[in-house]
Amino acid sequence: MTERHKVVIIGGGFGGLYAAQSLRRAPVEVTLVDRRNFHLFQPLLYQVATGELSPSEVASPLRHILHRSSNTRVLLAEAADLDPRRRRLRLKDGEELPYDTLVVAAGSQNHYFGNHSWERYAPGLKTIEDATWIRHKILYAFEAAERETDPARRRSWLTFVIVGGGPTGVELAGALGEIANDVLKSDFRSIRPEESQILLVEAGDRLLDAYDAKLSRAAEKALIGLGVRARLGTRVTAIDDQGITVQAAPGAGRIESRTVIWAAGVKGSAFGGVIAERTGAERDRGGRIIVTEDCSVPGYPEIFVIGDLANYRDETGKSLPGVAAVAMQQGRYVAGVIGKRLKGERAGRFHYCDKGSLAVIGRAEAVAQFGRFRFEGYVAWLLWLFVHLMYLVSFQNRLLVFIRWAYDYFTYSRGARLITGPIEEQGEATAPVRDVVEAGELGKRNT
Amino acid sequence: MTERHKVVIIGGGFGGLYAAQSLRRAPVEVTLVDRRNFHLFQPLLYQVATGELSPSEVASPLRHILHRSSNTRVLLAEAADLDPRRRRLRLKDGEELPYDTLVVAAGSQNHYFGNHSWERYAPGLKTIEDATWIRHKILYAFEAAERETDPARRRSWLTFVIVGGGPTGVELAGALGEIANDVLKSDFRSIRPEESQILLVEAGDRLLDAYDAKLSRAAEKALIGLGVRARLGTRVTAIDDQGITVQAAPGAGRIESRTVIWAAGVKGSAFGGVIAERTGAERDRGGRIIVTEDCSVPGYPEIFVIGDLANYRDETGKSLPGVAAVAMQQGRYVAGVIGKRLKGERAGRFHYCDKGSLAVIGRAEAVAQFGRFRFEGYVAWLLWLFVHLMYLVSFQNRLLVFIRWAYDYFTYSRGARLITGPIEEQGEATAPVRDVVEAGELGKRNT
Repeated sequence: MTERHKVVIIGGGFGGLYAAQSLRRAPVEVTLVDRRNFHLFQPLLYQVATGELSPSEVASPLRHILHRSSNTRVLLAEAADLDPRRRRLRLKDGEELPYDTLVVAAGSQNHYFGNHSWERYAPGLKTIEDATWIRHKILYAFEAAERETDPARRRSWLTFVIVGGGPTGVELAGALGEIANDVLKSDFRSIRPEESQILLVEAGDRLLDAYDAKLSRAAEKALIGLGVRARLGTRVTAIDDQGITVQAAPGAGRIESRTVIWAAGVKGSAFGGVIAERTGAERDRGGRIIVTEDCSVPGYPEIFVIGDLANYRDETGKSLPGVAAVAMQQGRYVAGVIGKRLKGERAGRFHYCDKGSLAVIGRAEAVAQFGRFRFEGYVAWLLWLFVHLMYLVSFQNRLLVFIRWAYDYFTYSRGARLITGPIEEQGEATAPVRDVVEAGELGKRNT
Repeated sequence: MTERHKVVIIGGGFGGLYAAQSLRRAPVEVTLVDRRNFHLFQPLLYQVATGELSPSEVASPLRHILHRSSNTRVLLAEAADLDPRRRRLRLKDGEELPYDTLVVAAGSQNHYFGNHSWERYAPGLKTIEDATWIRHKILYAFEAAERETDPARRRSWLTFVIVGGGPTGVELAGALGEIANDVLKSDFRSIRPEESQILLVEAGDRLLDAYDAKLSRAAEKALIGLGVRARLGTRVTAIDDQGITVQAAPGAGRIESRTVIWAAGVKGSAFGGVIAERTGAERDRGGRIIVTEDCSVPGYPEIFVIGDLANYRDETGKSLPGVAAVAMQQGRYVAGVIGKRLKGERAGRFHYCDKGSLAVIGRAEAVAQFGRFRFEGYVAWLLWLFVHLMYLVSFQNRLLVFIRWAYDYFTYSRGARLITGPIEEQGEATAPVRDVVEAGELGKRNT
C-alpha cells in the first residue's frame, strides 16, 4: 500500500470545514488543525453578544461534524511555523506535521489600525469569548446604571457606542435597540432602559457601504425606529475607559460611554505573517495574502490560502469580500483542485458566485440584495431567517435556534441574558479579563 | 403614606427566590441582593459540566423572573458586613441597605476539609463557571489523549476520578460514562473513548447513603453498566495535578488521573461567618448557622437564615439536608412569617414536607425514594425528567431542555460540547484560570 496524499488544513471556520467535508471521499488523508474544538457560525455571533442565543447554539464540535469522514483527523492545536521547502507545519507544542498539500484558512482578527490600547476598551466580535464578554459589558451597564445615583455617570452607563457601520455594526446596533426598548422594559426600578442612547459611529457617509444606497437609507430608517442614531462621517480618534473622542465635519467631540464595541474592521490572522515570511508572498494592507487565480500562494502551488486570510482578485481585478460565502466556495474549490491534481488533471481558476447579501436590523426588519433585486422589511427578514437557519451546521442547533427565535419573537424576551465570569466592579477597568481570554493565557490578579 | 416594611434578601437561589416570590403581594418593600444576575437551577448543573445543556438553559435572569413583582428590586451586589443593632447590611462597594427583616439565603460552597490546595486540581460543581471549567477539563482530556503517544500519560488523560458518592457524584459519573461510551464513540482516531476509566471514590461503605440501601446497590449496578467503577471505603489523602492518593482497607494507593472532580462536600458560604460574628449565632462543623424553630437567628427574630446556609433541626432533632426542596419550603415559610407578623399574628414552627429524593444515573436509569416507596430504572427516570422539567423556572428553558433531552436521547449526542476560555496546553497546570474565575478577580498571566 502506498502512502496517501496528506492534506493539512489550518482552521475549522467556513473555508477549512467546507474543504475538509468536500475531501471526504477523496483518496487523501486529511488533518484539520484548529485552536478550538468547534466550528463557529460567525454570522450569528452578534446574537450571543446580545443575549438571544447561547454559545453552544452557534457552535458545533468539529469532531462531531466530521466524525463520519473516516479519512479526516481533527487536532486541537495551534499552527506556529511553516517550512515550505520540507513541507512541514510546526505546531505550537513542537510537533511537526508533514503535508503534501496545505490549506490555510486561518481567518481574520479585529483590526484597530495600530491603536492597540483601544482593544481593552472596545472589544470586537470575533470569538465566543468576545461575544460573552460583550454580553457581560452590555448587561452589566444596565445593572450599574440601576445602582448609580449621579446623573452624568448614569448617563454614561446608559450610552452604548458601536464603532463601524458595516453589517456587524448594524446588526449589533439593532439588537441593542431591541434589548433597551422591549426586552428590559419592566425589569428595572430606578432606570428606564428605553432612555438608553445607542450610537452607531461610521467614518463613511453611509451605513452598509457594500449595499445599494437605497438599502443603506432603509437600514438607517429602521435603526431610528429602534432608537439607534447613526453618526455618519464621524471618525474615532481616541477610545478610553470613559468613552470616545471623535472627529466629525463640525469639529472634534467627546461621547461619554462605558460600553464601546468595535465593529470597524478586521485583518488577516497572525499566521498570515508566517506564510508571508516563509514563502515571500505579498500581503495587502489588511494583512491578507494575495493569492493566485487558483487560490494558491505564488510559487507554491501546494499551499492554498482561502477565506478571510486570502485576498483573491476576480477577473475584473476586484478583491472578493471577507464573507462566509466566499470562504465556503473557496473551500469546496480547493478540494476539487486537489482531487483533479491527483488524477493528473488541470483545474480552472476560481469563480465566485455571489448569491447576495443580507443584514438584519430588528424584528421583521432586514435588507437584502440579490443581483439586481433589492428587498427591505419583512420579506428580507424572512429570507434572512431562512438562510441563516439552513446554514447552521447541526440539526439540533437549527431546531434550538428556531425555537429561541420564535419564542423571543412572540414574547419580546431574551433567554441567554447571563452575566458570567468575574463580576466587574463599578469603575474598575474592564480590560484585564479580556486580555486573559484573548491571549489564550492563564492568569492571576494584577491590580 | 407611612414607610413600608423593608425586607432584604441575600441570595437568589431556591431559598431567596421563593421567599421573594411569596412576598409579591405582601405590603413590604423587597430588595434581593445577589452577586450574579441569574437564578441557577443547580440540580441540572452537572449536565452543563458534561456538555448536555448550555449555561443559559439552567439559569434565568433574576430581574426577568421577578419583573412583575413591583414591590421587588434586584441588586447585583455582594453582601460584605452586617450591623444587626442598626439593622443595616453593608455591601462590598460600601453602600448600606437598611432592613426591617433580613433573609439570608447565601447558600453553600465547596468544602475541601481544610485542604485548600486540592481546589486547584479538583474543581467542585457549585457555579456556572465551575461547570464550564469541568466541561473544559473533561473534553480537553480526550483531546490531549488523542495527541499523546506515551501509553502511561495517555492512560492518565483517560482516567477520570470523581470524589464523593452522593447524588452529585453519582450523576456526574453516570453522565461521564455515557459520554465515553456513546457520545464520543466515533469522534476520535487514535484513542477509543470507551476505554476510559471512570472511578467514583467514596469514603463510606455505599453510594447515595441518604437513600435506602437497596437503591444504593441498584445505583452501583447501573453505574457498572456505564463503565463506572465505584471504589467504596476509599479515603482521599492527597490530590495533585497528576492524580490522587487514597487510603483504602488494604493500604495506600495511587491513581494517576488528569481529571479529578470534587463532589465530596459543601459548607456554608462565607457570609455565614459574618452572621456568626455579628450575632453570636452558633455554627455547625459545616459552617452552617444553627437556627431556631422559625428559621431565625437566636436573639434576632428579624434575621432569618434559610437553605444550605442554615442548619435546621426538625422535631426529632435531626438536621434537614441541604437540598432544593428544603430551601424552597423555608423561603415560602419565612415569607409567611413576615406577613403574619405584620398583621400582629404569631407563626408556628417550620415543618419540612419531604416529597422524596431522586438521582439519575444514565439513559433510562434512575433511583427514587418517596416515603415508603422505592423505584429504580425506567419509572424513576421518567419521574426524574418530569420533576426537573417542571421546576425549571422559565418556560423557554423548559422547552429547550426538553428538546435537548429528547434529541440527545434518540441520537446519543451532546450539543453543548464546547471548550471555551483559554486553551490549556498539555502538561501545564490547570489551576490559574480557575483561581481567576473562582475568586471573581481579574487577571494576567503569572507564569
